[in-house]
Amino acid sequence: MRQVVMHAPGDVRVEDREDPTIIEPTDAIIRLSATCICGSDLWPYRGVEPVDHQVMGHEYVGVVEEIGADVRTVQVGDFVVGSFWASDNTCEICRAGYQAYCTHRVLMGTIGTQSELARIPLADGTLVATPGMPEPDLIPSLMAASDVLGTGWFAAVAAEAGPGKTVAVVGDGAVGLLGILAAQQLGAERIIAFSRHADRQALAREFGATDIVEERGDAGVARVKKLTDGLGAHSVIEAVGTQEAMMQAIHSARPGGHVGFVGVSHDVAIPGDELFMAGVHLHGGPAPVRQYLPELIQLIWDRKIEPGKVFDLTLPLESAAEGYRAMDERTATKVLLTL
Amino acid sequence: MRQVVMHAPGDVRVEDREDPTIIEPTDAIIRLSATCICGSDLWPYRGVEPVDHQVMGHEYVGVVEEIGADVRTVQVGDFVVGSFWASDNTCEICRAGYQAYCTHRVLMGTIGTQSELARIPLADGTLVATPGMPEPDLIPSLMAASDVLGTGWFAAVAAEAGPGKTVAVVGDGAVGLLGILAAQQLGAERIIAFSRHADRQALAREFGATDIVEERGDAGVARVKKLTDGLGAHSVIEAVGTQEAMMQAIHSARPGGHVGFVGVSHDVAIPGDELFMAGVHLHGGPAPVRQYLPELIQLIWDRKIEPGKVFDLTLPLESAAEGYRAMDERTATKVLLTL
Repeated sequence: MRQVVMHAPGDVRVEDREDPTIIEPTDAIIRLSATCICGSDLWPYRGVEPVDHQVMGHEYVGVVEEIGADVRTVQVGDFVVGSFWASDNTCEICRAGYQAYCTHRVLMGTIGTQSELARIPLADGTLVATPGMPEPDLIPSLMAASDVLGTGWFAAVAAEAGPGKTVAVVGDGAVGLLGILAAQQLGAERIIAFSRHADRQALAREFGATDIVEERGDAGVARVKKLTDGLGAHSVIEAVGTQEAMMQAIHSARPGGHVGFVGVSHDVAIPGDELFMAGVHLHGGPAPVRQYLPELIQLIWDRKIEPGKVFDLTLPLESAAEGYRAMDERTATKVLLTL
Repeated sequence: MRQVVMHAPGDVRVEDREDPTIIEPTDAIIRLSATCICGSDLWPYRGVEPVDHQVMGHEYVGVVEEIGADVRTVQVGDFVVGSFWASDNTCEICRAGYQAYCTHRVLMGTIGTQSELARIPLADGTLVATPGMPEPDLIPSLMAASDVLGTGWFAAVAAEAGPGKTVAVVGDGAVGLLGILAAQQLGAERIIAFSRHADRQALAREFGATDIVEERGDAGVARVKKLTDGLGAHSVIEAVGTQEAMMQAIHSARPGGHVGFVGVSHDVAIPGDELFMAGVHLHGGPAPVRQYLPELIQLIWDRKIEPGKVFDLTLPLESAAEGYRAMDERTATKVLLTL
């Protein structure tokens, strides 16, 4: 099969690799219909994380081609969506809704899903089948559910977005934009998007943003306070992962408010005294996407949401290198790779 | 009247000062029945915070002696308990249960309640009257409700202690011990107390601790994991305020668990990546004690809880200097001052 391999920073190739096989009786093999490039794939690409002939990708949708002897809930021929953590969905942590911390979890990035085929461990717990074979135009949205939508959704839930709430969203990348969509679906009354880019502002409004704030840092916080009677937002989504974004999120929330953070933290240190005085609830981390997949797939299937709009560049798998370049140079927000 | 004044670090005196008077029509004047010394009073005492002829104290119980023209809910002669933040209890933030962040809040420490009389701003919102004149043996427990019990209670609520939950408590001072009592009252199934002191371990067990862990830091976390099938506690109370205690609390909680922190942060910086990977809920800050006062007063009145047991030294107000010395030298955990 063909698979994306990063030989070294900046050196992405599509190569012939051996087809995956069933290793554990709980495995399934899927033939991918689409995959994509994640913002986190850019760290090794930029040399921020070490990389040496590494398989890439952790987002996937496709058709089940083979199942292990113990697989019960998905069948050969099913169209399935899974998350970036394979999880058994039965352990105590999974049952509490934290499948990203399943006691038997397997990180899909170590397997690599920017490929024609992929082995999915713990298939019963990990994969969710769609109601039938999806129309082609639904594929990008189902693909988004695999990570960015599920992550934005978790951030909105962690921020306790809901009816009567004012939600502020820090970060206008794919996850932040889908955090807006999630907040809107969860019934938020008002959604304030921090964004400086006209195209992302437009998509933010389409997804449900009612206000746009172009200022950042203290000036951005001051704007949110002004929009909320001096109190701050009830709910804040942090979808960047920098010190400035985290502190902007914490200070944009009112005392007793909720901050949901899903930006992967890089060199962030939260001053204890500022957090103490802020009085907010802070919750985040790798999203338990699996928890939300059945609901998200149904919303997409029923065409009530179209999260696939965050993909602004679609390329064949063979052109993966071009996709990495586009995301690195910021000419694309999120790249879909088709097969 | 007589009032405690800290002239300089280590220099505590009881002096004659002018009696307080009604300034705002929403004020009340109370005659104190008891007051106490807080762990936070030791910072200026030790020179960690600047101090220059400062009135001291923010915890108080006593009898209403005079009320302003607009005071409606308390009467002259009522025995009352209040919190360290005066609050209107009507603003949007108060109504959401965060009275420590009331938009009109006044910090009682700036008024000083280690005194015979004290002016209480926003009396209607701040003071809660007991059902009648308390028996003298109830006074220490009512005094505890004013701060340490209310703070421990908030920590337990923030940690979502409750039925079926395993709660770990970092810190065996007055607040940590009363966090144990709160967790027990809230129905926690198992309460793990971190403590190395025999007398505090004994009180911890009396308040509801089921397990004692003497190890700290990583070793302490490992013990909690071992006691919880490798998963960590559902709920963790942090009642110290140091870096080690905060990280011990975060790492003692399972993914998706809740950490309630009330230790006033000193030089704490929470690494973003560790918080991200932990997947816990983190909530804390100055406790909205006012929210819990009616419930706590009733529990004390009905003799269902005896939080006053945390006072291990009782002195007359005139001996305040001796009380500060005892807490500074750790010969006392918590000092009650009587009038």
